Amino acid sequence: MHTLFRLLKLLVLITIVFCNEEDNTIDKCNLPDVLKREIASYRNNANEIIRAINERFKNSTYDHLDEFISLFGNRISGSKNLENAIDYMLKKSERYNLENVHGEEAVVPHWVRGEESATLLHPRYKPLPMLGLGSSVGTPPEGICAKAVVVSSFEELKKISSKVKGKIVIYNEIYTTYGESVIYRRDGASMAAKYGAVATLISSVTPFSLATPHTGWQAYAENVTKIPTACITREDANLLHGMYKRGKTIYIKIKMDAHFLPPAISRNVIAEIKGHIDSWDVGEGAMDDGGGAFISWNALAILKAMGFRARRTIRTILWTGEEEGYIGALAYARQHTNETGNLDFVMESDIGTFTPLGLKYSGLPIVGCIIKEILNLLHELNATQVLTPADGGPDLIKWLSEGVPGASLHNENDRYFWFHHSAADTMDVEEPGPLDKATALWAAVSYIVADLTFDIPKNLTLQTHTL
Amino acid sequence: MHTLFRLLKLLVLITIVFCNEEDNTIDKCNLPDVLKREIASYRNNANEIIRAINERFKNSTYDHLDEFISLFGNRISGSKNLENAIDYMLKKSERYNLENVHGEEAVVPHWVRGEESATLLHPRYKPLPMLGLGSSVGTPPEGICAKAVVVSSFEELKKISSKVKGKIVIYNEIYTTYGESVIYRRDGASMAAKYGAVATLISSVTPFSLATPHTGWQAYAENVTKIPTACITREDANLLHGMYKRGKTIYIKIKMDAHFLPPAISRNVIAEIKGHIDSWDVGEGAMDDGGGAFISWNALAILKAMGFRARRTIRTILWTGEEEGYIGALAYARQHTNETGNLDFVMESDIGTFTPLGLKYSGLPIVGCIIKEILNLLHELNATQVLTPADGGPDLIKWLSEGVPGASLHNENDRYFWFHHSAADTMDVEEPGPLDKATALWAAVSYIVADLTFDIPKNLTLQTHTL
Repeated sequence: MHTLFRLLKLLVLITIVFCNEEDNTIDKCNLPDVLKREIASYRNNANEIIRAINERFKNSTYDHLDEFISLFGNRISGSKNLENAIDYMLKKSERYNLENVHGEEAVVPHWVRGEESATLLHPRYKPLPMLGLGSSVGTPPEGICAKAVVVSSFEELKKISSKVKGKIVIYNEIYTTYGESVIYRRDGASMAAKYGAVATLISSVTPFSLATPHTGWQAYAENVTKIPTACITREDANLLHGMYKRGKTIYIKIKMDAHFLPPAISRNVIAEIKGHIDSWDVGEGAMDDGGGAFISWNALAILKAMGFRARRTIRTILWTGEEEGYIGALAYARQHTNETGNLDFVMESDIGTFTPLGLKYSGLPIVGCIIKEILNLLHELNATQVLTPADGGPDLIKWLSEGVPGASLHNENDRYFWFHHSAADTMDVEEPGPLDKATALWAAVSYIVADLTFDIPKNLTLQTHTL
Repeated sequence: MHTLFRLLKLLVLITIVFCNEEDNTIDKCNLPDVLKREIASYRNNANEIIRAINERFKNSTYDHLDEFISLFGNRISGSKNLENAIDYMLKKSERYNLENVHGEEAVVPHWVRGEESATLLHPRYKPLPMLGLGSSVGTPPEGICAKAVVVSSFEELKKISSKVKGKIVIYNEIYTTYGESVIYRRDGASMAAKYGAVATLISSVTPFSLATPHTGWQAYAENVTKIPTACITREDANLLHGMYKRGKTIYIKIKMDAHFLPPAISRNVIAEIKGHIDSWDVGEGAMDDGGGAFISWNALAILKAMGFRARRTIRTILWTGEEEGYIGALAYARQHTNETGNLDFVMESDIGTFTPLGLKYSGLPIVGCIIKEILNLLHELNATQVLTPADGGPDLIKWLSEGVPGASLHNENDRYFWFHHSAADTMDVEEPGPLDKATALWAAVSYIVADLTFDIPKNLTLQTHTL
């Protein structure tokens, strides 16, 4: 099937992880007329794609995603469920006549949480809803029962470091941005273990909570005792902090069966004419990153069904093992070193598929100008904002750091972290209309970028860098 | 202490339960000048109260409530915790020199949920977070495992009634208003039991969810088999509904230890110069109804500390057993039949203590005009809206139905049902500033209404009615 292509290069649509706080809009663009004219020549194609998604393919991204989530729910790396979901997507991709459909192996960690609980025993009894953090060790079978100290920052922890030995450290960090606050989730256990803490609990990393714990990956530092670590709700962290400030003695019991099983072999799902397919092991993984995966997959399926065939290959990759540190993307990079110079443009959606507002790009300023020109063809979608940088996520960062231009979906994701990595990441977050719009934007932009007679300029000063 | 009063009548500040959807603003008022002048003469008092709460008593309602919640958390009727909280409030009321402080007994139900769980077994395995509904019977110790049907209304249930026998009925009702949707919580079990269902699950009654179950009281009809009933999250109800519509066979296992213990003796907390003190057994009961109870209590404490003494008695009552059907309010009514004609005005706050917007009243139109005139004295609070009817809750409804005029706090409570009866009803919902404003409004209005030389007119046409 590969040979059917007249294609010169690869275009990779990828899904992203990070949000960023330094968006800048495009001010001045002086694109050459010839270039503007060529982009303008795609107006009919753009309209055709939008019309098709408004009619023939209406709600199809939602319906595909809804069926997938109904069948599989959450899909943590190492799980049988993830591999079943991968098999399903490979078969589905073939059924939709996508080309060069195959899985590419990636060795992923297999962490399981098992049974877990945290209970406030003093000054009063209260069960504390919690989620062990990914990669945490467990407690002894009888659990850990210890006095707790509560701090709002690493600075505060340092100040009371002499009181930490043998205690449970609770981080009631203030949520500022995900990027700033997530440091407590990532490094909290190791920072406290240095002072002799026996376990840590963090306030869930979210700006809003309905007593909702939010899990995520944590990273033990080297040469530090690995201690159990979990998140509790923002509400309970505040309650415990208040008790602590009042001088109450706080006793908490933590029981966690968390442990690693041997690494498992997973696969990236690859289809051509290119989101992450894994998720956390709570909720349904409908938002993170079901939505991103399915706008990428369905954009490809719709272009195929409509007979669109661009000058370059358009490849959809459903990454495996993103949540544990972009395992699938790194495996792909190792397996595809020969393609590095062939990558023209990378796109990813891993920060929500709410109503689209435009794109966030990384690359030279001219990249932003080209994207702006393309998005103007799609004015009907009301999603013409161009910001920079791309929400430079783990899956994309290798290529972006090597100067490959790329973009992520800019969308109305103010509430993204309300649901992120929690039981609330379900199909209730997703809506057919915004998914249709995002799919139309994704399909049109990828087709146009893949078909232009000129390559989107790379940042050559970065090309000598390697990760 | 009672004898210290020059007071003619009782003024009761009470806490409410229902919201309503038929608010009407006041259009035309033609109050007699003499009446307007008298109300205007309270401008200095009103300003004094507002200033005191902005300065000397700043944040005091929040601080009182925060301490109370930190100590006790949730307080379901029949629990030792509720009685401890009542003892604490009685002692605290004496420490603040409130008058005629005492508890008045009320026999309350003692329902305990015990261990409980619901698990989807087919078409895939998924634990379903749930909360048994108040007064539900439990399952046999081994649980109930049965096929499930999913309906969105009683009409749909009726249509498939022949298929219900031996099954679990899941109500995935659409949330319209609390008043409409809560019918499924109240009557769901009995309606399904009529057709032979073995248990029911309802989608939690809330307009927004982060995988949050919301409990509440349910009522078995007479001559119908009592079957176990619980709420699940909106997300899971939607997921199960989707599976059902796809024709999947759904198997669910429910285990509930719920049962009644013998009725307990609880108390209404009464202090003079009048919210409910109980709560559901999840979350912290900070919003429902910690906030309402504490603006009532602190309004009285502040008036006392400032030396305000009105012509009529101002009585704060912290109702017990509201959640199980205004048990405390009904006990009080039975114990105070001799006072019925003496009740001039009743106020209650049980629908949130977010930023105050004004008052909602029940009574003759002139009552609204008087309230409007009073609230205008408090223009500094930016809470001058007057709507009708009062959010006529169970605790108030006996008196309102007998023609006693009354009011409830009108506040920015759009998100009230996000937190209601769930683990998310915690101190995180409450804020010092809005509580200060609500306390100022509560104190000033209750003082002025209690001190006016004229009685707020009753609706005499209703006075012959009895509940």
